[in-house]
Amino acid sequence: MRLAEISAATGVSVATLKYYLREGLLMPGEPTSATRSTYAAAHVERVRLVRAMLEIGGLSIADVKQVLAALDDPPSSVSELLGYAHSALPGPAPTGPPSPRVEELLTSLGWQVDPCSPARARLSTALDAAAAAGVPVTDERLLGYARACHGVAEVDLGYVASDARDTADMLRIAVVGTVMVDPVLVALRRLAQEAVSRELLG
Amino acid sequence: MRLAEISAATGVSVATLKYYLREGLLMPGEPTSATRSTYAAAHVERVRLVRAMLEIGGLSIADVKQVLAALDDPPSSVSELLGYAHSALPGPAPTGPPSPRVEELLTSLGWQVDPCSPARARLSTALDAAAAAGVPVTDERLLGYARACHGVAEVDLGYVASDARDTADMLRIAVVGTVMVDPVLVALRRLAQEAVSRELLG
Repeated sequence: MRLAEISAATGVSVATLKYYLREGLLMPGEPTSATRSTYAAAHVERVRLVRAMLEIGGLSIADVKQVLAALDDPPSSVSELLGYAHSALPGPAPTGPPSPRVEELLTSLGWQVDPCSPARARLSTALDAAAAAGVPVTDERLLGYARACHGVAEVDLGYVASDARDTADMLRIAVVGTVMVDPVLVALRRLAQEAVSRELLG
Repeated sequence: MRLAEISAATGVSVATLKYYLREGLLMPGEPTSATRSTYAAAHVERVRLVRAMLEIGGLSIADVKQVLAALDDPPSSVSELLGYAHSALPGPAPTGPPSPRVEELLTSLGWQVDPCSPARARLSTALDAAAAAGVPVTDERLLGYARACHGVAEVDLGYVASDARDTADMLRIAVVGTVMVDPVLVALRRLAQEAVSRELLG
């Protein structure tokens, strides 16, 4: 396959594909002459993944490189793999001591989460921002949201377990599925709000 | 209260407050002389709201103006109010005919949703994007996600019902709570994924 065919299959311009090649986001093709290379189906899949992470997931070039490095040299254990997936996803870097509220929540739910998981700091920041905007999330509500998110995560993990062809593919689904399903959940939440408000009104 | 005090209370610079005043995002104060005005606690609350919607919610100035217009002249019914809240929130405008998949989902769940709700188009776009990125959401998973989001919406609506002082405040909580709780849910989903993966591994 030539670069123009990759472009036709993915909708990404040849100029952008060359940029991905220069940045190391797309692996080089098989050279067929001094100026030409040939590409395979794996290149099409990689371009789709890079595009989704950059344009829809909002990851930086550096984040995407980190995800791709993990994909090319996958960790052996599944929990290590999820660690990679999460630390590669965009979000605030962990700062300062752990938030007592987040620690208490995890303890009361009995959730086992890596002490270094960036999602801890991310939750703490999001809770502070909601309080600053005049809509504080009480402990009771936070627990309600957490239980609902456990249901979301059960669907997520079923996804990874049933669709993955191998460990590398599991990482792909974990990372890309997490990023791409966020907007699905945002839309479902709004539809559900309308449905619940009508149920309450009778 | 003078503008400098509003600035100290909210962390928003005086220059930015003057910009909010010019744009009509902040209502004028009570004039005390030709060049001075005095401001009240309602101004502090409004500044916090505007800042949260602009900076954290990512709404455009036009979106924020639409929300504020609804706040200043609140609709009388709660369902009309939720319609305002949702149409004011950022997301893709409804385009083309309704997506058969979204219609089937709403029917199978028995959810009553306004045919013009922008969340329908938003869901359809998000599902197409996930499929294009190589992580298609099957019907079974979509149903699982929808059920979990119903749990989220129940917490959301409890929030609006218990904390709102009046109809205008209900709108404030519906809009700001929806926008500001999204990042809380994103963080909780990642923590839950880690917890569920450890539960599955035993």
